[in-house]
Amino acid sequence: MTHSDRILMGPGPCNPYPEVIEAFGRPVLGHLDPEFISLLDDTGERLRQVFRTDNPLTFPVSGTGSAGMEAAFVNFVEPGDVVVIGVNGVFGGRMCDVAARAGAEVVRVDAAWGTAIEPQQLLDAHPDPKIIAVVHAETSTGVRNDIADLGAAKGDALLLIDCVTSVGGIPVELDEWGVDIAYSGTQKCLGVPPGLAPLSVSPAAVERIIERPQSWYLDLNMIARYVTGGSARAYHHTAPISMIYALHAGLGVLLDEGLVASFVRHQSCGDTLQTGLVEMGFEMFAEQGHQLPQLTTVVVPTDRLPAGVGEADVRRQLLGHYGIEIGGGLGEFAGKVWRIGLMGHTARRRNVTLLLGALGEILAG
Amino acid sequence: MTHSDRILMGPGPCNPYPEVIEAFGRPVLGHLDPEFISLLDDTGERLRQVFRTDNPLTFPVSGTGSAGMEAAFVNFVEPGDVVVIGVNGVFGGRMCDVAARAGAEVVRVDAAWGTAIEPQQLLDAHPDPKIIAVVHAETSTGVRNDIADLGAAKGDALLLIDCVTSVGGIPVELDEWGVDIAYSGTQKCLGVPPGLAPLSVSPAAVERIIERPQSWYLDLNMIARYVTGGSARAYHHTAPISMIYALHAGLGVLLDEGLVASFVRHQSCGDTLQTGLVEMGFEMFAEQGHQLPQLTTVVVPTDRLPAGVGEADVRRQLLGHYGIEIGGGLGEFAGKVWRIGLMGHTARRRNVTLLLGALGEILAG
Repeated sequence: MTHSDRILMGPGPCNPYPEVIEAFGRPVLGHLDPEFISLLDDTGERLRQVFRTDNPLTFPVSGTGSAGMEAAFVNFVEPGDVVVIGVNGVFGGRMCDVAARAGAEVVRVDAAWGTAIEPQQLLDAHPDPKIIAVVHAETSTGVRNDIADLGAAKGDALLLIDCVTSVGGIPVELDEWGVDIAYSGTQKCLGVPPGLAPLSVSPAAVERIIERPQSWYLDLNMIARYVTGGSARAYHHTAPISMIYALHAGLGVLLDEGLVASFVRHQSCGDTLQTGLVEMGFEMFAEQGHQLPQLTTVVVPTDRLPAGVGEADVRRQLLGHYGIEIGGGLGEFAGKVWRIGLMGHTARRRNVTLLLGALGEILAG
Repeated sequence: MTHSDRILMGPGPCNPYPEVIEAFGRPVLGHLDPEFISLLDDTGERLRQVFRTDNPLTFPVSGTGSAGMEAAFVNFVEPGDVVVIGVNGVFGGRMCDVAARAGAEVVRVDAAWGTAIEPQQLLDAHPDPKIIAVVHAETSTGVRNDIADLGAAKGDALLLIDCVTSVGGIPVELDEWGVDIAYSGTQKCLGVPPGLAPLSVSPAAVERIIERPQSWYLDLNMIARYVTGGSARAYHHTAPISMIYALHAGLGVLLDEGLVASFVRHQSCGDTLQTGLVEMGFEMFAEQGHQLPQLTTVVVPTDRLPAGVGEADVRRQLLGHYGIEIGGGLGEFAGKVWRIGLMGHTARRRNVTLLLGALGEILAG
């Protein structure tokens, strides 16, 4: 069975940091072993630093980013609760689906894909929602939505944000912004393979966890007794031990580098890529001023492709001839947009140089 | 931060096979990379061999065993559906909780912890249930419940079994037994760290997947388009790539050894341990004839412990002085029972010898 070493420049997963893969090699500990509990506690502490929060209930959900999304909704939504959700891409749309399955009365605030959502529109959408939810970095469009102004004006609502693609790549300030519930994924700017969903819940939101969420697996009432139970730890489910080693190691790499240094690195790589693509004649898809450095979206240059070569052929050539993965568009932008990630360990100048060179060669036919 | 190498003789996780840890080192592929799709397909094929089934919908759920349990219920249960559940331990009880949260009318069939459930009682519990569910190997008590006779007599009901602790350690025959829905975990007799829940669904059960399960993350309608979509794969959520490498490798070790050889190894280790413990004066907890070889439960020999030494002290000494983890009891048997696992890579004669020696030394004071 062929197993190639790719340069992962799609919308995630990224290439993991070497220290992360090393961590997978550590001996497996039991999920109630004091040594593992220490490591889990330290993982929570590292996550608090990365999320910029003091929230005690900060831990990795035992599933991928979408499990984090589901945990973020099902623990707070009871049938009939009003949830305002900003939608300018796939993941905002997914939030609506998840919230509706928990019985929410969803109030959608749509913005065109490729543009950002105006925070005031979220605030004006309903006089008294239980939750206002928005995706910070839309992985489907490469757009950053502004969060900072929502917290101060949210009233009694809980502010819920998706940080899957933002954490580690651009500033995220849960406490300063007044965010109540935030989830992320490991496979983007944290430089860890997919498998866990870091989640953080403010003390105010902890008070509003519903009594019996529809999901047993994601029930924060029970999970909190394991992850923050102190000496009274209660087994809930067996934690994904080795994945937590990997996350712990990836957070260590990020914090050793420093959050600001990581943001600068991601920004620098993204700027260089975007400048290079524009110089090659590409048109950016995401709105100016809201472009993510870690995830660049460009309009497929249909008129510049060699004769008989479609956009999927270009991606196939990148993969087959260069071992580079980039992402296609989603939804109505399938075939029309490429998504190029520079996240985590992938966010290196050399990868920018490589991709621009490879694209140039392919477009030259 | 201390990180010891334990001999994991608790109720799971077990020690992983060395080949499994090696697999974690493989380069990360994208979840839509043709090479990863091939590996995922092959993982499904290996799971079919291990589950002894032809079910096309056989794949690892992106969560630990309890996520498998939740997927097994929420995709089939609508409010008011009657679900008969056998309960003779923690995991049968958990099934009731999960099913009830999906709106099931749960009909419990209880048996004393430590004893097996009589299949006829499950069949007689309700005239027309939608699901009959039972745990094959109860991890909380070390008891094997008989499944083989349920399939032929189940009528229109779907037969749902928890194989978390059984698969790879004792015979599991999904197709021969007429099982419709089965889930497992990776960290027991498959010799892989925790993190995935292999799931298999019969074609008859696929026809009865409900339209819109309450869980988006576990929605089999959408997941099936990714895992069995052929050329029309649709992205659902990012698969936990590296964990799937690990599972694929663990299944390879198991199939290379051969299922029957693995059962013989687990049985031999369990027999040797149980004989040794009885010779030392221990009393077995699980009912004769239904004792799991891979998970031995013994009554704590309170009267034989050195003065001032409690059962938790014994477990602490095993962990601290010998690096051996065994499990305590759960629920009302906390403090009264020990659970000793010999699963996956841990199921080695040398570990039996070691544990009996260590226990002998500790009891000698």
